[in-house]
Amino acid sequence: MPMTLRLDPDRLLPADPATREVARSLYASVAELPIVSPHGHVDPRLIFDDQPFPNPAELFIRYDHYVTRLMHAAGVELADLGIPAADGRPIAEPRQVWRTFCAHWGLYAGTASGYWLQHTFATLFDIDEHPSAENADALYDRIQAALETPEFRPRALFARFGIQVLATTDDPLDDLAVHAALAADPTFTGRVVPTFRPDGYINPLAPGYAENVRALAAWGDYEVDDYAGYLRALERRRRHFVEHGAVSADFGVPQPYTIDLGAERAATLYAEAVSGSISDADARELLGHMLLESARMSVADGLVMTIHPGVFRNHSSSTFQAYGPDTGHDIPVAVEYVENLRPLLERYGNDPDLHLVLFAIDETVYSREIAPLAGFYRSVYIGAPWWFVDAPDAVLRFRAAVTETAGFSRGSGFIDDTRAFLSIPARHDMSRRLDAAFLARLVVEGRIDRAAAEQIAGDLVVAQPTKVFKL
Amino acid sequence: MPMTLRLDPDRLLPADPATREVARSLYASVAELPIVSPHGHVDPRLIFDDQPFPNPAELFIRYDHYVTRLMHAAGVELADLGIPAADGRPIAEPRQVWRTFCAHWGLYAGTASGYWLQHTFATLFDIDEHPSAENADALYDRIQAALETPEFRPRALFARFGIQVLATTDDPLDDLAVHAALAADPTFTGRVVPTFRPDGYINPLAPGYAENVRALAAWGDYEVDDYAGYLRALERRRRHFVEHGAVSADFGVPQPYTIDLGAERAATLYAEAVSGSISDADARELLGHMLLESARMSVADGLVMTIHPGVFRNHSSSTFQAYGPDTGHDIPVAVEYVENLRPLLERYGNDPDLHLVLFAIDETVYSREIAPLAGFYRSVYIGAPWWFVDAPDAVLRFRAAVTETAGFSRGSGFIDDTRAFLSIPARHDMSRRLDAAFLARLVVEGRIDRAAAEQIAGDLVVAQPTKVFKL
Amino acid sequence: MPMTLRLDPDRLLPADPATREVARSLYASVAELPIVSPHGHVDPRLIFDDQPFPNPAELFIRYDHYVTRLMHAAGVELADLGIPAADGRPIAEPRQVWRTFCAHWGLYAGTASGYWLQHTFATLFDIDEHPSAENADALYDRIQAALETPEFRPRALFARFGIQVLATTDDPLDDLAVHAALAADPTFTGRVVPTFRPDGYINPLAPGYAENVRALAAWGDYEVDDYAGYLRALERRRRHFVEHGAVSADFGVPQPYTIDLGAERAATLYAEAVSGSISDADARELLGHMLLESARMSVADGLVMTIHPGVFRNHSSSTFQAYGPDTGHDIPVAVEYVENLRPLLERYGNDPDLHLVLFAIDETVYSREIAPLAGFYRSVYIGAPWWFVDAPDAVLRFRAAVTETAGFSRGSGFIDDTRAFLSIPARHDMSRRLDAAFLARLVVEGRIDRAAAEQIAGDLVVAQPTKVFKL
Repeated sequence: MPMTLRLDPDRLLPADPATREVARSLYASVAELPIVSPHGHVDPRLIFDDQPFPNPAELFIRYDHYVTRLMHAAGVELADLGIPAADGRPIAEPRQVWRTFCAHWGLYAGTASGYWLQHTFATLFDIDEHPSAENADALYDRIQAALETPEFRPRALFARFGIQVLATTDDPLDDLAVHAALAADPTFTGRVVPTFRPDGYINPLAPGYAENVRALAAWGDYEVDDYAGYLRALERRRRHFVEHGAVSADFGVPQPYTIDLGAERAATLYAEAVSGSISDADARELLGHMLLESARMSVADGLVMTIHPGVFRNHSSSTFQAYGPDTGHDIPVAVEYVENLRPLLERYGNDPDLHLVLFAIDETVYSREIAPLAGFYRSVYIGAPWWFVDAPDAVLRFRAAVTETAGFSRGSGFIDDTRAFLSIPARHDMSRRLDAAFLARLVVEGRIDRAAAEQIAGDLVVAQPTKVFKL
Repeated sequence: MPMTLRLDPDRLLPADPATREVARSLYASVAELPIVSPHGHVDPRLIFDDQPFPNPAELFIRYDHYVTRLMHAAGVELADLGIPAADGRPIAEPRQVWRTFCAHWGLYAGTASGYWLQHTFATLFDIDEHPSAENADALYDRIQAALETPEFRPRALFARFGIQVLATTDDPLDDLAVHAALAADPTFTGRVVPTFRPDGYINPLAPGYAENVRALAAWGDYEVDDYAGYLRALERRRRHFVEHGAVSADFGVPQPYTIDLGAERAATLYAEAVSGSISDADARELLGHMLLESARMSVADGLVMTIHPGVFRNHSSSTFQAYGPDTGHDIPVAVEYVENLRPLLERYGNDPDLHLVLFAIDETVYSREIAPLAGFYRSVYIGAPWWFVDAPDAVLRFRAAVTETAGFSRGSGFIDDTRAFLSIPARHDMSRRLDAAFLARLVVEGRIDRAAAEQIAGDLVVAQPTKVFKL
Repeated sequence: MPMTLRLDPDRLLPADPATREVARSLYASVAELPIVSPHGHVDPRLIFDDQPFPNPAELFIRYDHYVTRLMHAAGVELADLGIPAADGRPIAEPRQVWRTFCAHWGLYAGTASGYWLQHTFATLFDIDEHPSAENADALYDRIQAALETPEFRPRALFARFGIQVLATTDDPLDDLAVHAALAADPTFTGRVVPTFRPDGYINPLAPGYAENVRALAAWGDYEVDDYAGYLRALERRRRHFVEHGAVSADFGVPQPYTIDLGAERAATLYAEAVSGSISDADARELLGHMLLESARMSVADGLVMTIHPGVFRNHSSSTFQAYGPDTGHDIPVAVEYVENLRPLLERYGNDPDLHLVLFAIDETVYSREIAPLAGFYRSVYIGAPWWFVDAPDAVLRFRAAVTETAGFSRGSGFIDDTRAFLSIPARHDMSRRLDAAFLARLVVEGRIDRAAAEQIAGDLVVAQPTKVFKL
């Protein structure tokens, strides 16, 4: 028998009644503020096309590797979750995918995904039962019916969610025509900005690097092994992004290692990388050099530099071969910022034109490295908890780890970082509740005043990301 | 004057009254469930012989290195705690050991050992005073008198504790006659199963390796440097364990490093290891290879593979020389799972026949590595906190670190891992209280429903370890 | 409009009313105990000269790199905070520095510095408004007026603060005349003891090493590259410190690496170090050897050995060149104790004449390494959280991380480690509140008795540091 699903209006607020009362009031003061989303992975075409979401399985499961991975661990094949495989094996029909998901709903109890899904089911679809094998079809039909209404078109939801600005993540060679069309569309008043993400063009070990740099050279009209041409082309592509509203460039590197190889050595390694003859060690050197060069470009063109390091991508080769990337087997590793980032910080760390946002999944660097760096260097901001640690308890650990050193002025503001468009309100709401919970504790422990807490709660939602991301 | 010792019926439950009420009810629902203990270090002969425990000092102190180490730090010689020394120096009499312990009872305030001992003193011996120099003799006499009664024989306690299954940890060449005799004994209805622990046979740097592999060869009737014979013999010994009820094989390695050396290179290194000519670096390679081979064997014979890595064993050479291993100077070090385990996971990570339980004392890997791995790979389960982190606050940190990524379905269930037979109920009770506390917080924070919490609380105690350990 | 500043009498105590009541009573039992400060950076001349503090900016800002760093991150030049620069650029006047600080007061909300400053403003200067641009001048005048009264002279504050003993940190070649004069002064009844801090004499990579060892040789009357003479001179300087009341020697090393190079190799490396020809790698070896030698000396002369490792000093070269060391850009790095310290512990770890206090900013070593080491080795004590982690939440994390393994008997007691004389009461008060909070939680969770908690709370303040630092 399906269990009742009821959202607690005080969810995520501290249990202690006095603290909860403070938290409730802080949360109320920010609950309805607009959503600023300066980093994420929503496809801009989704907003541009404004077509109905096809079905509940596409919407909630197939693209959400937070969700698929736990079912995979439980023994479900990814093809049975609607993910196409390279070998062309049959994939499950949407309704069957949804049934599988509902039957496994118990897996998500206590997880961040479970929390977001509950929020979305209840607030958007008025679902009041937990998904289960029994009610799977009924829920599918209810969601499907809603998706076919105008209120559930992407642009309607964009407005309903109160999204003020939404950043996408884009390939450097993307012509950004979709962004341009959206900006030019008088019927759409939202702001959707691209983000320059050059990993595949600066990391010789990234899949597709050789083709990417070749395509860049073709676009830029220089010999592919011409390092100076390569730098110029990157700069021009960044300018293209700036002209289309981009505010940041994002880097997903194994480690935030930076080094100045000098132009000559860099050119040599770049030529080796292009020809495929570079060693793994030299590839890492070149990537470190390009990260430094990217900081130089950010100083010049103003793009905020965000670093998302420390993930072993595609840990399971067989899954990668069958299903491709972003299918749930990226695994975090330990990160080191202090030594790795020093060449960059020596050069640009206090440059007022650089904003450098440092993210981490490895929680050990929050109190040890990132907060101390951000508490001194003018360029450095503390990235919000990301991916596996974008979850209630982890967020509170993060706040406790960085605040005593760096206060509230050095944070990035919340970043939803999601592909799952419908989860955006749930994630931002979660963040606001947790900040209210954290601030309320500081109030009740006599560490900050209630008025200061209210000011900070509001700043964290709008002023801080607006400032840090130069919105 | 001795202080009153009173067990709080709500101990370890959260302070907030509303949360405590939920936790109390969750705890009540599992408090009386049987004990499933799939990994530990109780000597099976203790159950088989069913002799009275000799005295309080033997029972509580001499074998419990959690307890002896803090007195050692305070200046007490291990010989004065009844531990025999290699140089034959006199060791203290049991009553004197007990007096020393009681005089140092204050050392244990706030420790896990102190918590377990309190529980045991109060629940088994009706002791209502904290141990002290003043009451040491009286407590000794009271415990001694109890130990001489039939109710305190090991088998009676086994039944009284409600132990459903108890796994021991055994040498691969153990004939398991004691286990067989216990199984065949119609007067004993409990289940005591062996565990295959081959460290001393696969790690060339382990004490006794040369003699062990020689003994194995003698048993298996092959030349000691015959690598193929060695593998076959290990497989046969594992089969012997399976036939005697074993469900798992346990590995205590410095790092969970795995590698496929290929049969030829492995054979060469093995021959060097046997002859004692292997370098330390190659010994680590061979161990990594044997860990991979052990996973292969697990896929074949079904033994659950458990890894307990990251302990620098016998850190104090002088203590080791005088008193041997397991005398309190094993110290944890940092652990890395993601790179180290990849060769194994590439091969067997999603194999339905492998169950791989990853333990850690290094808390940093819980949220960063273990939960993400277990949330994708079908074989991987999250080991309960172990040794130094098997303690109230550490357990709650653990739950908070892994649950948001992996939920409750990927955990091993509680593992008491103890040599101290009398502490088993205290440890399992502690685990149940802490899980109730954690779940209650999620309920009060609106993250899971009370009904789901109750379901999960029960599953964690019986269903989960039963499934993970194939009981 | 400035906001009211009001110190909550229950600040830092747990929110739960029942727990808070216990914590309040525990705190009350220790609130008025004297201050024991066995490690810090107050200039002894401050106490000796007993001159009025010049002005609020000198007192609260210019020397406090916890405070200046956050304003630096916000874009304020260090010269504008009164810190003289090597290039002789003009520095701001004290009143202007103070105005800048007040205008940036919001940066400190939630930080440890903000907490200490609030405490100091309210308790010493009866300030009841938060600093702001509006009230900056009024606050300046109020503080300035107070500083000119006899009650605010350093010795009067020393007495008012209830400081029983205050350790300074001193150069090995310091003649300690100030300490001697203070000790001989019948009008001063406090105890101010020096601390031997030889980093600049044993670490070839430390700034000034060459001049330091030359000055030592000149003092000791031996050839500067005479290693035996060098060791003897260090021993004699330590003795000089002991004769002037020193109880400890402090070591600020990148890593707590120790090694026995043997006298011959050590002499060779020392000669290379003196001549400036030593490699970085060999310099680290020599430092490791000297750390081991320093432990030997501690066994001989009884100076407690304290290690503060794991800080990348002077991370920003340009800031270092302009403003020198201790200007806010020292950044913590990961630390490893178990392997690094083993050679030292093998030799002296259980020596009753060695007290070895291990500090860490890298929080990961608390539960993994330091508590296990201190729970076995007689010499090892757990250093209180330090620098970036000397803050409310971090201290509670620390207590939770070490207590379950090592109890309360293996800690150093609180160390304020400060240059900011006026912050000493705030810091010790914070520590007492947090220990009360932690102990109260253990009481309410049924883990320790209230009577035991009260005993422990008192011990932590006086008995424990008195014992560990041989006061």
